[in-house]
Amino acid sequence: MKDLPVLSSTLINDAVRAALSEDLGRAGDITSAATIPAGARATADLVARKRGVIAGIDLAAAAFRELDPTIRFDAKVADGSTVEAGAIVAKLEGPAHAVLSAERVALNYLCHLSGVATATAALVARVAHTHARIVDTRKTTPGMRTLEKYAVLCGGGFNHRFGLDDAILIKDNHIAVSGGVIAAIERAKAAASHMVKVEVEVGNLDQLAEAMTVGPDAVLLDNMSVEDTRTAVRLVAGRAVVEASGNVTLDTVAAIADTGVDLISSGWITHSAPALDIALDVETS
Amino acid sequence: MKDLPVLSSTLINDAVRAALSEDLGRAGDITSAATIPAGARATADLVARKRGVIAGIDLAAAAFRELDPTIRFDAKVADGSTVEAGAIVAKLEGPAHAVLSAERVALNYLCHLSGVATATAALVARVAHTHARIVDTRKTTPGMRTLEKYAVLCGGGFNHRFGLDDAILIKDNHIAVSGGVIAAIERAKAAASHMVKVEVEVGNLDQLAEAMTVGPDAVLLDNMSVEDTRTAVRLVAGRAVVEASGNVTLDTVAAIADTGVDLISSGWITHSAPALDIALDVETS
Amino acid sequence: MKDLPVLSSTLINDAVRAALSEDLGRAGDITSAATIPAGARATADLVARKRGVIAGIDLAAAAFRELDPTIRFDAKVADGSTVEAGAIVAKLEGPAHAVLSAERVALNYLCHLSGVATATAALVARVAHTHARIVDTRKTTPGMRTLEKYAVLCGGGFNHRFGLDDAILIKDNHIAVSGGVIAAIERAKAAASHMVKVEVEVGNLDQLAEAMTVGPDAVLLDNMSVEDTRTAVRLVAGRAVVEASGNVTLDTVAAIADTGVDLISSGWITHSAPALDIALDVETS
Amino acid sequence: MKDLPVLSSTLINDAVRAALSEDLGRAGDITSAATIPAGARATADLVARKRGVIAGIDLAAAAFRELDPTIRFDAKVADGSTVEAGAIVAKLEGPAHAVLSAERVALNYLCHLSGVATATAALVARVAHTHARIVDTRKTTPGMRTLEKYAVLCGGGFNHRFGLDDAILIKDNHIAVSGGVIAAIERAKAAASHMVKVEVEVGNLDQLAEAMTVGPDAVLLDNMSVEDTRTAVRLVAGRAVVEASGNVTLDTVAAIADTGVDLISSGWITHSAPALDIALDVETS
Amino acid sequence: MKDLPVLSSTLINDAVRAALSEDLGRAGDITSAATIPAGARATADLVARKRGVIAGIDLAAAAFRELDPTIRFDAKVADGSTVEAGAIVAKLEGPAHAVLSAERVALNYLCHLSGVATATAALVARVAHTHARIVDTRKTTPGMRTLEKYAVLCGGGFNHRFGLDDAILIKDNHIAVSGGVIAAIERAKAAASHMVKVEVEVGNLDQLAEAMTVGPDAVLLDNMSVEDTRTAVRLVAGRAVVEASGNVTLDTVAAIADTGVDLISSGWITHSAPALDIALDVETS
Amino acid sequence: MKDLPVLSSTLINDAVRAALSEDLGRAGDITSAATIPAGARATADLVARKRGVIAGIDLAAAAFRELDPTIRFDAKVADGSTVEAGAIVAKLEGPAHAVLSAERVALNYLCHLSGVATATAALVARVAHTHARIVDTRKTTPGMRTLEKYAVLCGGGFNHRFGLDDAILIKDNHIAVSGGVIAAIERAKAAASHMVKVEVEVGNLDQLAEAMTVGPDAVLLDNMSVEDTRTAVRLVAGRAVVEASGNVTLDTVAAIADTGVDLISSGWITHSAPALDIALDVETS
Repeated sequence: MKDLPVLSSTLINDAVRAALSEDLGRAGDITSAATIPAGARATADLVARKRGVIAGIDLAAAAFRELDPTIRFDAKVADGSTVEAGAIVAKLEGPAHAVLSAERVALNYLCHLSGVATATAALVARVAHTHARIVDTRKTTPGMRTLEKYAVLCGGGFNHRFGLDDAILIKDNHIAVSGGVIAAIERAKAAASHMVKVEVEVGNLDQLAEAMTVGPDAVLLDNMSVEDTRTAVRLVAGRAVVEASGNVTLDTVAAIADTGVDLISSGWITHSAPALDIALDVETS
Repeated sequence: MKDLPVLSSTLINDAVRAALSEDLGRAGDITSAATIPAGARATADLVARKRGVIAGIDLAAAAFRELDPTIRFDAKVADGSTVEAGAIVAKLEGPAHAVLSAERVALNYLCHLSGVATATAALVARVAHTHARIVDTRKTTPGMRTLEKYAVLCGGGFNHRFGLDDAILIKDNHIAVSGGVIAAIERAKAAASHMVKVEVEVGNLDQLAEAMTVGPDAVLLDNMSVEDTRTAVRLVAGRAVVEASGNVTLDTVAAIADTGVDLISSGWITHSAPALDIALDVETS
Repeated sequence: MKDLPVLSSTLINDAVRAALSEDLGRAGDITSAATIPAGARATADLVARKRGVIAGIDLAAAAFRELDPTIRFDAKVADGSTVEAGAIVAKLEGPAHAVLSAERVALNYLCHLSGVATATAALVARVAHTHARIVDTRKTTPGMRTLEKYAVLCGGGFNHRFGLDDAILIKDNHIAVSGGVIAAIERAKAAASHMVKVEVEVGNLDQLAEAMTVGPDAVLLDNMSVEDTRTAVRLVAGRAVVEASGNVTLDTVAAIADTGVDLISSGWITHSAPALDIALDVETS
Repeated sequence: MKDLPVLSSTLINDAVRAALSEDLGRAGDITSAATIPAGARATADLVARKRGVIAGIDLAAAAFRELDPTIRFDAKVADGSTVEAGAIVAKLEGPAHAVLSAERVALNYLCHLSGVATATAALVARVAHTHARIVDTRKTTPGMRTLEKYAVLCGGGFNHRFGLDDAILIKDNHIAVSGGVIAAIERAKAAASHMVKVEVEVGNLDQLAEAMTVGPDAVLLDNMSVEDTRTAVRLVAGRAVVEASGNVTLDTVAAIADTGVDLISSGWITHSAPALDIALDVETS
Repeated sequence: MKDLPVLSSTLINDAVRAALSEDLGRAGDITSAATIPAGARATADLVARKRGVIAGIDLAAAAFRELDPTIRFDAKVADGSTVEAGAIVAKLEGPAHAVLSAERVALNYLCHLSGVATATAALVARVAHTHARIVDTRKTTPGMRTLEKYAVLCGGGFNHRFGLDDAILIKDNHIAVSGGVIAAIERAKAAASHMVKVEVEVGNLDQLAEAMTVGPDAVLLDNMSVEDTRTAVRLVAGRAVVEASGNVTLDTVAAIADTGVDLISSGWITHSAPALDIALDVETS
Repeated sequence: MKDLPVLSSTLINDAVRAALSEDLGRAGDITSAATIPAGARATADLVARKRGVIAGIDLAAAAFRELDPTIRFDAKVADGSTVEAGAIVAKLEGPAHAVLSAERVALNYLCHLSGVATATAALVARVAHTHARIVDTRKTTPGMRTLEKYAVLCGGGFNHRFGLDDAILIKDNHIAVSGGVIAAIERAKAAASHMVKVEVEVGNLDQLAEAMTVGPDAVLLDNMSVEDTRTAVRLVAGRAVVEASGNVTLDTVAAIADTGVDLISSGWITHSAPALDIALDVETS
């Protein structure tokens, strides 16, 4: 597995504080306040209920520690690890009130991000026999882009653009508005910073051929058939990175990868990945 | 369909601005800046690619208008409506640059929330022959709770607690820490404001019988069999609201509802609902 | 005294930082900068000048520590304690500049919240021979609701709603708009989450009788005479929580409590409680 | 009455949004949502229940308009006006839901600030036969300083320092730490910007005489007797502004003013002023 | 002149509000409040006192309109225009108090950004006979990066990276830590997204030759002599973008450009550009 | 050198976090992530490349520590110190990734503020033989006022107003609008708090004479000749502080000071001071 970037502590802490504020509201955890005796402590395990790839352990740890810095949080696996159903992801011990108050926020991050990582890993596994990379899109949950893109890395995928400002990706709509694929690419290359790459989306082989005459850095084959995709790879012949998108599922991804494309992008891994079922099992002490 | 609450404009605008900031970064939409001629306008449709229930139209509208207040956004359906594949959700017209720059944020909200509404509606449809309500949980995406709970309403569901502070829900962990179900309920009733209800989670019929001796407002049957659930409903006999949770799927929900429970809660509708596929089709003008 | 909830450190720190920023402005404490020699230290006592109930010690401590984490702050009494005039609330020691710069913010929180607690305790003492609870309202200082409601608890009172979203309280205006008390209650019960209680305000015995036919969880007797209040308690006969409001003063509260009501709500304890006089006495070291 | 400053719309809007967010929470006004029929409108009056001086009308107006910009808010009196019990402060008309949802926030600002103005005006009236000005202190509610100081102006008072950074006020503690009153003043005058004045607090006539040898811009007589205060005014003889503080009540303030002091400062007008009773009376339309 | 991007209104408004808050403090513009009669209006010109290139007109306009939306602001030149000393940049008319209160913030933005644009334009003019572009760096004023980079565009320059996250630029320190230039480039190309370019800084011709064996997208010649720079351009021979940095002044820039480099980067244009002298001349009306 | 105020840690940390967020964007330092081996450490010096006065060391330290609290930062000089070219300002050691990621933000603060301090010191040195103080203006970079005014102190200068709210400075525009210099001063003195000083700007000796008849605390001679300035000082004769502004350069400042003015204000030291060249030299360890 490749190295994972380190999430900044500022990002983690800001995220966790906002989520705790959303959950605790004005009056805080009134159930724990009412029912837990003063001084009660809890020992607990974060346990995976299903097989999957873990992402977001630092966020879970931060949620507990934000409510009580004395909570001991002992991660048993690292982000990016595949765990089996029943595996202990982390053990923790501390004041029962704080442990139970932070539980849901910790799990909401951990289950969501591990869900993204697990979905990514499922696609990655099916293309492992090829050189194709699974990449994400900007189809992320508002407010969660950096975290979801981190989870994609945890699942073995790669990141595409983080936003509208860090690369040029000319889509069908831009082409229509700017007077054709050649004009669009030429305008883009003239305007772009020397550090910005230009990718162009094409919908068929003719458009691809036209685009290749003006040298884009990458081409995005949108919703093309496997057959056309294979032809496209031959047509590009290494002169640009070739990305395929559209109709990417667990069933189709291997065939797409077999065409020789460099990248296969999937919105599903971020916008529709089911959460990984992870729970907090508490024993009192 | 029941009346939907009105999302506050402050909430909508803050959400949309944060998401646009996340997508536009420091340098903004460099593709549109590079490729779209000054003054170019666009007419576009938001089109559902799949059948589903719409939620989040006001967020989509706000995303476009935030980037250019002159964009005309004409909603063709209201939140809570079921649309067929191919249906036009909204028509819009305005400066091409602003339309394309806001597209992804508008869709990220609309597709995600419509996904939640659609998943909710699927469960609701299967229990329509009973009096059972589908309710949500606190298993929401961090930062999106109010919006996701609104989407649950759009799908015909009902809302459970919005946070830890607005009702008492005594779970197994609280019971363990506080010395038994009776002690926990009694402590909760003594501590609670007169406007706060007390619900208790039980895992079997014995625990339920014990809990009922001290009069909770509601009981949550956690992961009990359909048979035991039916017995539980008889045992409670209207003295408390009965909620069932655990193993709630499209296949099982009708049988659970047939037991006579009042509420069936599902985390799946918020944490794992696939996004509804909605796209922006642009024609230039 | 009942257990007090623990104020979250995030809430405390955010509050204290905002108040320090308001007081220090852009240029900071220019008096201390000009007059206090480098390295000067101060030992000081927080001293109550009047008898009262203390609330907000953690905020005072946080104000000093925010400006200099090395300041030692040694609380001599806990929140909720009654202190006599002259009592030392806390002792502290540290760099003189930081101690004097934080003084006013620390005292502004401590005196205000202790004022709320003291006012509450005065009402509570007068109803101690009954089962009536003193409860607060939403008539709080903007931005201070959670803190003021905490201070009410410190004074022996109880909390009513924290906001418009955590319970249904149908007031005269809602009744007028919705077509009568019965219609309003029925609409509320149909719409409410199963975890939300419904209280209705009534202004006379006829309206109370009408309301009781549709089973509210609580009734609020608004500005009714002591005589009518006593009749109302008999009429309700335990079927709902009975709350009295209006004309609640130190002189009247005992008579209201003697009617047998469950709750007596007072806006005065939060919106008009005089600050408790607490001062910082410094000796140089 | 002197001209009042105009509160900035940014300050007003930020204040009102924060307070509405505090009151509406995550789920909003669930009572109005449940009970008010769609399309219902309300006509209402803001009515003073007691005699007093009004402050904060623009905040009240902003609270209503923030929830619905179509609400018509027609102020009947201006900030700084004295109204009798029963007077209509403003009339308003708009969607009933928005009117009732904003009511409490509008009143919390209006009643609190009018309370400050009313308390100030009471002191001002008692010193009207002298040249003494009533001034405020930094003993304000955290987060409300600018608004409370504005309310002091509405009541006919004047403002002292807005914070630690806009003037030098050497108190007893600074004197103790810096080695005497002369040293403290000299250090202050050397360090101060040419646009900053230096005031020094003295506790007796000897200290005053000592201070006057080094030319402060103002002297603060702290808790001195009326007799000593009169002597102090003679001693200063116009060479500095003379301010009195301590034991300033409605009963004592006239005597203090009669000594010839220029300023009388009161913390009571901001930290302990009872709210002015103003209510919203709705009639449906 | 090339098209300029449109600064987002959110960015402009947030920037202007923060700056006004910094200038107005808690008590606002006390000079205007004290001296300007109610209702007084002002007509004024923004006048350039020196020749230069204008940038930031929309920020100036927003500063005035933020304080009073009725102020008419009529720009006489567009961003990117060169103006002579004495030229009127904009005319404005409105309430005198608001005009004078916003003056300094409007000018602080306009003079600073026009200073950046003017400095950039001076370099650009000296290399106009070559194909070299003047580009900026990350040596910007904290908090002002997007605005300063916009001003660089106004001056005819081009933008380099907006931050650490939008391209890979391997500097000498990275090379040292990662075991040599070849290893560093290879690691970067393996890790990079397909949309990210890789530039490498080299300090001499040997290091350049080594770097070119592994195909970077761009090379940065750091502080190399004009002679070596010319050799470097020949050595690269179009296989990578060539950027020169170090010792770039008005005197040296033409010679550097004459070597055939593609880009010349300058920190001076953002971190040391003198403000352009623009003033507000008011006539009363 | 006079004592410097201590910048608050809240101000420092907020500033540094905002700047790091601006530089790191969503994806963070992708160069370091790609090229620096896990566990690599770096030892580095902050080295002045030019002679100058240092300001902002605590901000530089905070930038490194924000990214990794284990980085050791050892300042070799204090703010306000003059260093020669080649001097080591600080030594640091820690994880290479964090050191390189924070480098630019640390330097952007340190170079900018040291530039302000160095420019100030240059003016201060030229007037050292007189009693004149060099003071700053409100012509600061938006968002940086407190820091830039701190840097002015580091350079031996003094601060003028921090904002529009902390003193009254009547400029030509106020005079024009309020009906003459006498009317303006009288209005100001009547309205001002007793702790606020009143300064008036005059453009010639006649206006000065007129102003002096109503006793301002200070006069600002705007753009007057050296000869007139000398006459003005005699005319004022110690009855007010005399400040000169306009055409203040390294060449002119001594002659202005020789006239006997108390203060010479310069916008150049904040809005146009070139950054001091300081760099980070890393050696790997």
